[in-house]
Amino acid sequence: MLNMLSIGLEEAETIIAAASTAASAMNVPQNIAVVDAAGHLVAFRRMDGAKFSSIDIALAKAYTAAGARKATGDILPATLPGQPGFGLQSLNGGRLTTLGGGVPLEVDGQVVGAIGVSSGSVDQDRQVAEAGARAFRPIGG
Amino acid sequence: MLNMLSIGLEEAETIIAAASTAASAMNVPQNIAVVDAAGHLVAFRRMDGAKFSSIDIALAKAYTAAGARKATGDILPATLPGQPGFGLQSLNGGRLTTLGGGVPLEVDGQVVGAIGVSSGSVDQDRQVAEAGARAFRPIGG
Amino acid sequence: MLNMLSIGLEEAETIIAAASTAASAMNVPQNIAVVDAAGHLVAFRRMDGAKFSSIDIALAKAYTAAGARKATGDILPATLPGQPGFGLQSLNGGRLTTLGGGVPLEVDGQVVGAIGVSSGSVDQDRQVAEAGARAFRPIGG
Amino acid sequence: MLNMLSIGLEEAETIIAAASTAASAMNVPQNIAVVDAAGHLVAFRRMDGAKFSSIDIALAKAYTAAGARKATGDILPATLPGQPGFGLQSLNGGRLTTLGGGVPLEVDGQVVGAIGVSSGSVDQDRQVAEAGARAFRPIGG
Repeated sequence: MLNMLSIGLEEAETIIAAASTAASAMNVPQNIAVVDAAGHLVAFRRMDGAKFSSIDIALAKAYTAAGARKATGDILPATLPGQPGFGLQSLNGGRLTTLGGGVPLEVDGQVVGAIGVSSGSVDQDRQVAEAGARAFRPIGG
Repeated sequence: MLNMLSIGLEEAETIIAAASTAASAMNVPQNIAVVDAAGHLVAFRRMDGAKFSSIDIALAKAYTAAGARKATGDILPATLPGQPGFGLQSLNGGRLTTLGGGVPLEVDGQVVGAIGVSSGSVDQDRQVAEAGARAFRPIGG
Repeated sequence: MLNMLSIGLEEAETIIAAASTAASAMNVPQNIAVVDAAGHLVAFRRMDGAKFSSIDIALAKAYTAAGARKATGDILPATLPGQPGFGLQSLNGGRLTTLGGGVPLEVDGQVVGAIGVSSGSVDQDRQVAEAGARAFRPIGG
Repeated sequence: MLNMLSIGLEEAETIIAAASTAASAMNVPQNIAVVDAAGHLVAFRRMDGAKFSSIDIALAKAYTAAGARKATGDILPATLPGQPGFGLQSLNGGRLTTLGGGVPLEVDGQVVGAIGVSSGSVDQDRQVAEAGARAFRPIGG
C-alpha cells in the first residue's frame, strides 16, 4: 500500500488567504486555486475583478505543479523550441502548463499539493503563488 | 448596453460558509461551488472527505443553475424520455446537469449567480445548496 | 493534513491476475483496469481478443467506483428515468458510468482504489471485477 | 483485405517488465504503456512513485509512435517553428506528442505496436522505452 500525505481544506484556505493578501498588496485581483497531492481541486477563490479566462489557467497551474512536482515556470525552459520538452503544453487535455504561477507544496520533500495563480502578468502570478506557498503550514497528519 | 449584476467573492464566501455549516450538521462532507451571473467560478471548497469525482459535478450544478435560472432538480422532469428536453444532459460538453443540488442566487428576480453542491445523496446536496442560497445577502451593488 | 491510503502496483497486479483468471475461466477476454484512491490509473491489461472500444469503459468503471465509493452497477437504479440521479452518466467528461463492472477496493471501510472490467456482458464484467476485488490483499502500508 | 499483425498481451507484458527493470536500475519510477498496431492500449503499469500527470503522456507517446511509425523524439525537429510540421502537437485531441520516450515495435519493418514511457526526464524516458522495445520478441503470429 502507498500512504499519500495530502493537504486538507484548512491548509488550503490559509494558503489562499496569504496569496490573496499578497495580490491585494499589488493591487492585482487574482484567481487562486489549491489542489491536493493527486491534482484534485481543494479550494478556489476568484478575487473581484480577476479575469474569467484565467480561472482555468489557475487550475491548470496548480494541477501541473502537483503533477510535475516543480514550479510551472521552471518547466518552461525545457519546452522551448529546440529543447526536448517542446510541445508539452498540449498534453493531458490542455491541463499541463508551463506558465509561471504554479508552485508545489511540500512536506519533508514530498509534494502534498500545489497552488496555481492567474490573472496578472506571469511574474505577478508567480509572486502571489510563492506568497501562498510560503504560508503553508502542515496541520496534524 | 446591459448591466449585469453579479455576486462577488464576499457574498460567495458567505454562501459557502453557510452551506458548509449545513453539511457539517449532516455529517456529510461536500464539494461546494459558487459561480457568478455568467456561470464562471467565483469560489470553491472541498470539505475533507468529499468525493473527488463530485468536484466536477458541483461545478456543473452551479453552472447549470446560473444558466438555466432554475434549481437543477427542477429541470429534470422535462428531460425524461418522452419529454421535449430529453438529452439535455449531453450538451455543453457535459456541463449541463439536472441532478438536484444546483440553486440560482437571485436579487429582485434577477439571477446573479448560483451554488452547486455534490458528494452526498441528491437530497443532501439539494438541502446544502438551499442552505447556502438562503444565506445569500447582496452587499452594495 | 490528510493521510490517503492507496493501492500500489503490486496489489494492482495481483488483482488483475485474479480477474484475468476468472475471465479465462469464462472464456471471455476482458479489459481490466485498476486505479488508485484518487482515480488515477495504476495498471491495465487487455486480454487478447478484448474489444478496443471497451478499453475506455473499463477505465471509466474503475474511475467511477473509486470516486463514488460504490460498485458502478449499484449506482444505476438511482439514475433511471424518474429517479433523482437521472443524467449522471454525462458528467465528468463522460468518465462516470453506471454500467456494472466497477468495484471499489477497501481497507477497513476506506476506499483505496478500484477495479473496472469491460468487454463481455455487463454481468460477465461484474463477475470478473468482483473476482479481482476478492483477490485484493493489502501489503504493508 | 488487410492482415494487421499486432502485438498481444504476452509480448506487451514482457516489454513492460524489461522497461520496468531498466527504470528500477535508474531508480526512476515510470509510467509504461504498450499499445497495439491500431494505437489501442494493451497494457499499462505505473511504478509506485511515478507522476500521475505523466500517465496520459505515456499513453500519448505510445499512441504517437504506433501511428507515426517513428520514435516520438525523432518527429520533434520537423515540428519546430519554421518547419512544416509546426503545430502537430495540438492535433488528435492532444494525443500526438513529440516528447522522446515513445518507440515503435516492429516485425520485419512493419509496426505492430509501440511503447510509451513517462515520468522521468525525456532522456530517461527514452532510455527506458528503448530497453522495453529491445526486449520485444514476437510470439507465434
